[in-house]
Amino acid sequence: VPLGEFDLIAKYFTRRSARTDVLLGVGDDAALLAVPPGRVLVAATDTLVEGRHFLAGTPPGSIGHNALAVNLSDLAAMGAEPAWALLSLSLPSPDESWLEQFAGGLLALADSFGVALVGGDTVRGPLVVTVEVLGFVEPTRALRRSGARPGDLLYVSGWPGESAAGLEILRRTGRFDETADPLVRRHLFAEPRVALGRELGGLASAAMDVSDGLLGDLRKLCAASGAGATLELESLPVSAALRARCTPAECEHWVLAGGDDYELLFTAPASAQAAIESLDRDAAAGGRPRLTRIGRIEAGQAVRCTRAGRAVDVAEAGFDHFV
Amino acid sequence: VPLGEFDLIAKYFTRRSARTDVLLGVGDDAALLAVPPGRVLVAATDTLVEGRHFLAGTPPGSIGHNALAVNLSDLAAMGAEPAWALLSLSLPSPDESWLEQFAGGLLALADSFGVALVGGDTVRGPLVVTVEVLGFVEPTRALRRSGARPGDLLYVSGWPGESAAGLEILRRTGRFDETADPLVRRHLFAEPRVALGRELGGLASAAMDVSDGLLGDLRKLCAASGAGATLELESLPVSAALRARCTPAECEHWVLAGGDDYELLFTAPASAQAAIESLDRDAAAGGRPRLTRIGRIEAGQAVRCTRAGRAVDVAEAGFDHFV
Repeated sequence: VPLGEFDLIAKYFTRRSARTDVLLGVGDDAALLAVPPGRVLVAATDTLVEGRHFLAGTPPGSIGHNALAVNLSDLAAMGAEPAWALLSLSLPSPDESWLEQFAGGLLALADSFGVALVGGDTVRGPLVVTVEVLGFVEPTRALRRSGARPGDLLYVSGWPGESAAGLEILRRTGRFDETADPLVRRHLFAEPRVALGRELGGLASAAMDVSDGLLGDLRKLCAASGAGATLELESLPVSAALRARCTPAECEHWVLAGGDDYELLFTAPASAQAAIESLDRDAAAGGRPRLTRIGRIEAGQAVRCTRAGRAVDVAEAGFDHFV
Repeated sequence: VPLGEFDLIAKYFTRRSARTDVLLGVGDDAALLAVPPGRVLVAATDTLVEGRHFLAGTPPGSIGHNALAVNLSDLAAMGAEPAWALLSLSLPSPDESWLEQFAGGLLALADSFGVALVGGDTVRGPLVVTVEVLGFVEPTRALRRSGARPGDLLYVSGWPGESAAGLEILRRTGRFDETADPLVRRHLFAEPRVALGRELGGLASAAMDVSDGLLGDLRKLCAASGAGATLELESLPVSAALRARCTPAECEHWVLAGGDDYELLFTAPASAQAAIESLDRDAAAGGRPRLTRIGRIEAGQAVRCTRAGRAVDVAEAGFDHFV
């Protein structure tokens, strides 16, 4: 007997949440949610399509994980605390084993961030996964893309480029089970920088998550802020895992143009430099992603790359899922 | 030059909203939204897939309209006031004419309910449309499915069955431009009962919207409430447009099993009967959808149909988009 759409949601995605701010979750026409007084609501949505955002053959647990992770990353980039998620799942057939693994990946990540799945919709159709995440932030601590000012320092978290290099390895090998490989694991299980986003509230002047390549996303941040930037290529962080597998030129390519890393790209006034260096020392001591200064915001509109102080022409298009 | 995904959202879906509670809309990593003090947040999402929720050939303006309408209907069924929407659009190619019409249909309906589009995602892929609507409700006026109690009266708004009959006409004729036909228009441009939902807050004991057929949805309402019901077939409202086109047996079929009507099915204690009759008189005077009493909630779990007081066996499966 095929499972009806209502049964699917009930069977795989309904769980009792520990959150007392979920007044009504999965199972009614809509969810009822209590936003804490004094906070503003933060809402983001992202869609994953097979063959475009993940390879055919990707384990369902990874798809479920990443469908939520990309949205958590959007909230991290706002300095927000994620609270609730809704899932819209279009899939060709109600395959129970697929659903169990997909739900397992999504709900494990939700649990690790204390996020409750409060609603959704499951329909038969091509494999398309849309997740919406809701959360909240103190109004004065919200991180916009538009706040960068000339003179601000430019930072990136962690190790951009690893995920794209992992995707390239998967394209070559098709070995989705090689999760001992840190690059492959990074691609299959993105790590949203939620805790870092919370710490940057009140410190950073602008922030966004790196989903379409560092250089292209920097251009977007600068356009939103009405400013330019200098990006120091020799300062870009290159992880040991990436360096072990790629030539220096390949490393730079992945770091500048690789998508789906979900690191935070952010700016801060010089007055915040000491506080950010302190965050970085804490991160290093705790094994969390380091914060690397990679340039500065400039007057004007140009985003220039330099190497050892000399201008370099870099033509990295960045990811655009529509081109 | 093909439009990139970012341009699509910016070009067709970014508008300045009159809502002062949108602190940050389309264009950043997430939207920032102010929920009024004392209200709870209400969140719903629904997905439309070509060939399942709408026929191939459906005008893009109708798809945009209905993708939002089905979500507004979910909020109506909670007694909530809609405020904001997010759109996730997967489409095969960035066809500008298609997008203009789709956005036109969606935004015209959004405007008519004062809803602001505050974010979204556009990707290349099969045609799948997901909309999420957010709104709010006074905590004591939220309408759940689970509140029906034995002895409560059972009502439905407006004219269930019209949309399904309109779909059947479209299947036969393929004439999507026949919007002078009230049944076709009803199918292509669903009318969410938002104002009625607001009026029922504090009056109704339970409510849901009729999206999968009245009889099947009544069973869901009863299951959520831990109750049964008697449905009086001779009391079902049949519109003049439906009666003019169908035999009495066909009319009853469409009213009981037709999906996508987005009428409200609701229950109320006998003490609220006079107030609901007054709402119905106001509706009749104002040309708005009538409220029809169609049965009562019973102890037990059985949902029985009667005709002139005698039990009748009705085997209507109801819509299930997964079977």
